[in-house]
Amino acid sequence: MATSPDCPLCRDAGGLLVWQDADWRVIRAAEPDFPAFYRVVAQAHVAEFSQLPAPARQRCMELVCVVERTLIERLAPTKINLAALGNMVPHLHWHVIARFDWDSHFPQAVWGPRQRDADAGALQRLRASLDGLDGLDAALAAALCRVG
Amino acid sequence: MATSPDCPLCRDAGGLLVWQDADWRVIRAAEPDFPAFYRVVAQAHVAEFSQLPAPARQRCMELVCVVERTLIERLAPTKINLAALGNMVPHLHWHVIARFDWDSHFPQAVWGPRQRDADAGALQRLRASLDGLDGLDAALAAALCRVG
Repeated sequence: MATSPDCPLCRDAGGLLVWQDADWRVIRAAEPDFPAFYRVVAQAHVAEFSQLPAPARQRCMELVCVVERTLIERLAPTKINLAALGNMVPHLHWHVIARFDWDSHFPQAVWGPRQRDADAGALQRLRASLDGLDGLDAALAAALCRVG
Repeated sequence: MATSPDCPLCRDAGGLLVWQDADWRVIRAAEPDFPAFYRVVAQAHVAEFSQLPAPARQRCMELVCVVERTLIERLAPTKINLAALGNMVPHLHWHVIARFDWDSHFPQAVWGPRQRDADAGALQRLRASLDGLDGLDAALAAALCRVG
């Protein structure tokens, strides 16, 4: 598999590993303002989505879709945000972020200007829902395993 | 087709129409800092990518991929940015943006903090490359027609 020695996403998982196979991994990002912030990361070092062959692109978006659906079912967010930017780390990774009208940046992008302090109680409840046997991470891992 | 009377993307194209069929359209956004900023917009009013059935998701990403590839071939950008956010207009639209290391925000997201004034000459050359028979818009329309 193609890797690049200076690439942080070739060197490390890039967050808490939720699920992986030979081609893709799903990690939870360490973003304090956005606890339900996941990334679907290519295991190989590839910069652009269109550099993947069609079956790999389809599988990638199927995984993105499974993460999105699980976030919607478990969290009922105001909106899901999807993005593959890679300006700083040009190794294909899809951001899948559950956004809430009470979060620190809504309706701006998470990369945009802060709008307010997030609702502290809602943020704490969201953080508490991620871990454990019944948590979101476990639900995501189960859903991703079902995709195969 | 499902439409929503208050939705700006149900009411208007949302930019310069480059190509369309019954299900999708591609528009060029009016973003002065980012001339090569296109959007793949669902003709129907749907909020989240995962609400589409699998064949529609595949076609959507095939169109996104064709736009991305054409931007890469014609412009050799530093990076392509893809995103479906919809926090302000929850009608599915994929941003496909050619980013350059000389642009006003690179390596930040276009929604992030401005980094500098863009290189004026490069910006002008980019703007001049979009229109006309040999322009990027025409190349995109031709490539999107070939996808069918």
